[in-house]
Amino acid sequence: MDDDTRTAHWERRTEMPLALTSVLFFTSYAIRVLGHGLPRPWPSACVAVMLGAWAVFAVDYAVRWRLSGQGPHFVRKHWLDTVVLLLPLLRPLRVVKVYEAVQRRRGRPRLTLHARVITYAGLAVSLLGFAGALAVYQQERTAPGATIHTFGDAVWWACATLATVGYGDVAPVTPVGRLVAVAMMACGLALLGAVTGSFSSWLLQVFAGEGTEKPPGGNEKPPGG
Amino acid sequence: MDDDTRTAHWERRTEMPLALTSVLFFTSYAIRVLGHGLPRPWPSACVAVMLGAWAVFAVDYAVRWRLSGQGPHFVRKHWLDTVVLLLPLLRPLRVVKVYEAVQRRRGRPRLTLHARVITYAGLAVSLLGFAGALAVYQQERTAPGATIHTFGDAVWWACATLATVGYGDVAPVTPVGRLVAVAMMACGLALLGAVTGSFSSWLLQVFAGEGTEKPPGGNEKPPGG
Amino acid sequence: MDDDTRTAHWERRTEMPLALTSVLFFTSYAIRVLGHGLPRPWPSACVAVMLGAWAVFAVDYAVRWRLSGQGPHFVRKHWLDTVVLLLPLLRPLRVVKVYEAVQRRRGRPRLTLHARVITYAGLAVSLLGFAGALAVYQQERTAPGATIHTFGDAVWWACATLATVGYGDVAPVTPVGRLVAVAMMACGLALLGAVTGSFSSWLLQVFAGEGTEKPPGGNEKPPGG
Amino acid sequence: MDDDTRTAHWERRTEMPLALTSVLFFTSYAIRVLGHGLPRPWPSACVAVMLGAWAVFAVDYAVRWRLSGQGPHFVRKHWLDTVVLLLPLLRPLRVVKVYEAVQRRRGRPRLTLHARVITYAGLAVSLLGFAGALAVYQQERTAPGATIHTFGDAVWWACATLATVGYGDVAPVTPVGRLVAVAMMACGLALLGAVTGSFSSWLLQVFAGEGTEKPPGGNEKPPGG
Repeated sequence: MDDDTRTAHWERRTEMPLALTSVLFFTSYAIRVLGHGLPRPWPSACVAVMLGAWAVFAVDYAVRWRLSGQGPHFVRKHWLDTVVLLLPLLRPLRVVKVYEAVQRRRGRPRLTLHARVITYAGLAVSLLGFAGALAVYQQERTAPGATIHTFGDAVWWACATLATVGYGDVAPVTPVGRLVAVAMMACGLALLGAVTGSFSSWLLQVFAGEGTEKPPGGNEKPPGG
Repeated sequence: MDDDTRTAHWERRTEMPLALTSVLFFTSYAIRVLGHGLPRPWPSACVAVMLGAWAVFAVDYAVRWRLSGQGPHFVRKHWLDTVVLLLPLLRPLRVVKVYEAVQRRRGRPRLTLHARVITYAGLAVSLLGFAGALAVYQQERTAPGATIHTFGDAVWWACATLATVGYGDVAPVTPVGRLVAVAMMACGLALLGAVTGSFSSWLLQVFAGEGTEKPPGGNEKPPGG
Repeated sequence: MDDDTRTAHWERRTEMPLALTSVLFFTSYAIRVLGHGLPRPWPSACVAVMLGAWAVFAVDYAVRWRLSGQGPHFVRKHWLDTVVLLLPLLRPLRVVKVYEAVQRRRGRPRLTLHARVITYAGLAVSLLGFAGALAVYQQERTAPGATIHTFGDAVWWACATLATVGYGDVAPVTPVGRLVAVAMMACGLALLGAVTGSFSSWLLQVFAGEGTEKPPGGNEKPPGG
Repeated sequence: MDDDTRTAHWERRTEMPLALTSVLFFTSYAIRVLGHGLPRPWPSACVAVMLGAWAVFAVDYAVRWRLSGQGPHFVRKHWLDTVVLLLPLLRPLRVVKVYEAVQRRRGRPRLTLHARVITYAGLAVSLLGFAGALAVYQQERTAPGATIHTFGDAVWWACATLATVGYGDVAPVTPVGRLVAVAMMACGLALLGAVTGSFSSWLLQVFAGEGTEKPPGGNEKPPGG
């Protein structure tokens, strides 16, 4: 069994456990940020779970590094994985692997190209938006002069930002909050561009009559759109 | 006559009545929201008409479910119809069926691809924007601290949102109003992307000189643009 | 000489006079709006020139109607011309005809497709933005509670709107001003989408190395970009 | 050796020195703008370095003009170079030449088309945004009624502008600051459109399965994205 086969094998076996760990990580983070009125043991427990989840991510990264046999080049070649390891809030970017695994396991036929892009990028953008709203809320909640007071405000701000509408009625004022916002703009807009572009080209295709071999339900919208 | 033929038959016969019912529904909703100074019987009458229209939609959905013979799968396969049944304000998304029916009845030749996309998506986006402005106005009218005071403000806000300009001089402050706004961003931006994309590619085509077989009037813009 | 030939002949002969009339119209409008401190005869003179220019447009429309021999169908078939006649501020949309005429007269080789789209749409969007800024300034200048106080504010607002940035530090508050703004969003965004799309695809083409037959100057940007 | 060969020779030899001069120019400008608390000799030294760098740019322009042997046509044909000479803050637009030179020197294989566009346009947009933030900060820092008080505010404003989000919580108020902002919108949005468009089409390509010949590291994102 050569290195590539081993890596593929490892990735297939760790897909679902890693996805569950990610869910655990985000749930703990959400409880940590939103449950600021919870009694003493809760916050510490959440931090512990987050650290544990992060340790799992680190072990996965180390094993894949070892299996690849690439030495120091691995860090640069898998830069996306490296970034995601250092900033676990960007994990939603890896949602595509989980999604493909789920589809494979359930024996479903693959969706059409446009539907896949819309589903993947839409999912990633929603999760990133949620993570960004959490992170900004944590920073802004107690900042002086902040306009984001509740988590609802943070979600509203995240939606307005990802749609590039940007009302400005609520906006981050702390340096860290603004850094998160810029990262969200960069990741989110590119992914949202993919969603919009796919949707538009799918619409054009349907209208061009090339879409006569519609999915059995006769839907006129791609799943997940 | 098999199931598919029956469904097609039913859809062709109900197209126009359903469209008229939709118009009735929206008119009643508009009167209900805008006519808050009208005397006693009016608001109740509007609600009654809306409930009646909704009952018609539900019957249509039930008949098509029955005719399809698909059992519980129908709900998931026709998820767009299901969503539109539960949230009748999204009905404009079905405008394409009405539009095609009208064109067929008047024996008109089909428009070119770009013109069809621009007409359909432009119409859907206008109606969705109007419905969204109504819904937001209803929520915000009496909310404390609201910036949307008149229906004109709501329409202005809807236009600025759909164009992703988002001045922020007026913006919803209530949770329900913001939920409507997010739905409007999601639906509207995708459709507007289709309009803009079609218009751009049509413009490119005209300039490339492939547009020499222009429509008889020699217009340099697609109808409805 | 049949109708089509006559129309083409008329259009070729009136191209430049009409363009000059349009320039006159816009200049008068600009003086009328911006020169609100000018002594008595000036405003009336500007209005007179504008009415005269409009009369020229109406005569041109009438002659083309007559030449077409289409009767009442002409209004609907040439709907863009009809709209431009009723709202002369939209005249910049016809800039493409003037531009082509100038190019033909000077015997220049035609630009590449992308350069043409960028030049035309960029020119139209600039002129429309200028006209929109003038119209909004006229409405807002004396309105109570307005944020647009100087013509500089109006131009700044127009740029922020056409780029869909929409800071909202200045925004129209009068109904007519907002109507102009919505029209500007609709026209401008579509044209700007054409510019951006053309620029992007041109950039892709250059990078793909298909752009080796560059224009003589070896520019790496299309003229007018 | 004919003119074209000489020009190419000159450009290859001056690439790196010019790039270093540009870096020097921007560093001096940044120190000049940000270090407004530095003791006396510093600001003057920065201005001197900037003037020196500009002289180098002018000499390069003059030599290329002479080598081209085109006489007065050169100015119009190389209009981008002319503009960049007059407004040295737009120098990042020439980053592509430096980038290609670096790649060639290090003997690296050329990146794929999408990766090249994303890298070039992303780099250019980042540098332009930085230059714009510096210029706006210089103008607004001491203006009455300004909302941009720190350089952090200026960077935050630049990011929100380039992403077309435009919250409007901070925005330039001086005429020169607004002029810089409009230039930034025009350049930045077109380049950002190229980045987003490339990213989207790259994503579509990956999903279409044509991306099976992935780069060795198996990354699912283009370098520099």
